[in-house]
Amino acid sequence: MRNFDQFTITEAVLERIANAPDPRVRDISAALVRHLHDFIREVRPTQEEWARGIAFLTDTGHMCSDTRQEFILLSDTLGVSMLVDAITHDHQREVTESTVLGPFYVEGPPEVPCGGRISGALSGQPMFVSGSVSRPDGTPLADAIVDVWHSDEDGYYDVQHPGDQPGRHAGLVARARLRTDAAGRFHFWSIKPAAYPIPHDGPVGRMLEAQGRHPWRPAHVHFMIEAPGFERLVTHVFAAGDAYLDSDAVFGVKESLIRDFVEHPAGAAPDGRTVDRDWCHLNYDFRLSPVSETASRAA
Amino acid sequence: MRNFDQFTITEAVLERIANAPDPRVRDISAALVRHLHDFIREVRPTQEEWARGIAFLTDTGHMCSDTRQEFILLSDTLGVSMLVDAITHDHQREVTESTVLGPFYVEGPPEVPCGGRISGALSGQPMFVSGSVSRPDGTPLADAIVDVWHSDEDGYYDVQHPGDQPGRHAGLVARARLRTDAAGRFHFWSIKPAAYPIPHDGPVGRMLEAQGRHPWRPAHVHFMIEAPGFERLVTHVFAAGDAYLDSDAVFGVKESLIRDFVEHPAGAAPDGRTVDRDWCHLNYDFRLSPVSETASRAA
Repeated sequence: MRNFDQFTITEAVLERIANAPDPRVRDISAALVRHLHDFIREVRPTQEEWARGIAFLTDTGHMCSDTRQEFILLSDTLGVSMLVDAITHDHQREVTESTVLGPFYVEGPPEVPCGGRISGALSGQPMFVSGSVSRPDGTPLADAIVDVWHSDEDGYYDVQHPGDQPGRHAGLVARARLRTDAAGRFHFWSIKPAAYPIPHDGPVGRMLEAQGRHPWRPAHVHFMIEAPGFERLVTHVFAAGDAYLDSDAVFGVKESLIRDFVEHPAGAAPDGRTVDRDWCHLNYDFRLSPVSETASRAA
Repeated sequence: MRNFDQFTITEAVLERIANAPDPRVRDISAALVRHLHDFIREVRPTQEEWARGIAFLTDTGHMCSDTRQEFILLSDTLGVSMLVDAITHDHQREVTESTVLGPFYVEGPPEVPCGGRISGALSGQPMFVSGSVSRPDGTPLADAIVDVWHSDEDGYYDVQHPGDQPGRHAGLVARARLRTDAAGRFHFWSIKPAAYPIPHDGPVGRMLEAQGRHPWRPAHVHFMIEAPGFERLVTHVFAAGDAYLDSDAVFGVKESLIRDFVEHPAGAAPDGRTVDRDWCHLNYDFRLSPVSETASRAA
């Protein structure tokens, strides 16, 4: 096995990995080699372009930290995340659709009781969020875990605000973990999120610019919902009427996930509070998919 | 453009990049999206496998430093580097073949006069290296830049030895920049390099293990040769008889690049020195390719 040309090199690599102990590793590796080599043979990179590719991947890796996941942004902006979403979620009409996780989820968010306010010292239009979690047939699911996170009125997430320590953010806000009550319902107060550009001060931002694309996402609230015996749901609810619904930088919008963030004048809110300025109300009723054989394997 | 399935998502991404200002960026981006999506559709990753892929790329990026290029190792071990080499070098019989750069080249190596010893305080069998640089027709090229680097007798490069500062190596050794004399010739002393495993304490090492592969490369000396008006030559000379010539972890071996490292007993060397122990002699005569239209574009 010496003196490979641009075709025999592929066979040589495949032969080398043919004895991988785990057949799944072997199959993924072989597919990666075949498709990667096909890509290279199609574009015929110069050595300089190859070096720029290596530098791009290196910069992308160096940009990743506890609060920034540039490779997820890359996967999102190349449509890979939504492709994996499409493959892993055969849509059933009666359950809520999923979308991208995005790069801003933080493990172990602050636990907040129903009715709590999660926006801390942030300014912005008050937003009342209510909803429910149920089985596909509508039976409520009590004590489901509802993780929620969203941007502020300027379109930034908490973790994007620098703290006083290098690499540390200023505190978790507009982010919480709630639990549904006995009727499968939850509600909380926050501020209305804004449309925002994905972080574009790194390699992915440079890629988008080179591709002639904008980095914007329509305004949305992220939800991640878990209940024993059901598939974990990772999704957003998007604001109806947003200018970026048809050009989401990460291809995450689905019709069924768009809702009015209904505007209300100052006055009484559904939970009995009186709000001293205009506010909006977002409601979404989520339906989870029971864990199936397939889902268990995929989890 | 909403509610994509696993096929329409690819069209949506291609549509988004269709207006990239630079046609080369557009073509490379479009090919990347098509082949990457084909790969995903073939392997149908679970969300967990997607997350492991993101983590693998992130770890690979974090492993990269001034003296360690894990993405080059990844490219090398997946056969991509040699595929790019095959595409960018249509082999002409009369010029020296190229092979991978590898991850250990250091910009600005120590300049050494012909006849110098480059092995510093390293122990090992003395190695006399001689050679020439010429045009395809054999006309000598004077004052060509000859960069050389190789492993020590334990198979390690200088930059793999930790210094007293984090991320700093202990010093540049077994590495030099020489220039050919008026007859196009050069020679220097070093120690005989050993076969070695590519650095396998990182993500690429874990990949090789999962793929059931060894990380070894046959013993070799790296050369990078430049002369005005000629394509830069990046190559190695491999030691004949090495156990790994047929299973190089990075697929870099070519028959024309194998030479005997000829063994000699203690005594007089070609440059008039007397060596007090056994030594070896490697000679290679390099022929460079004149810069063509095509090569100019590729450079």
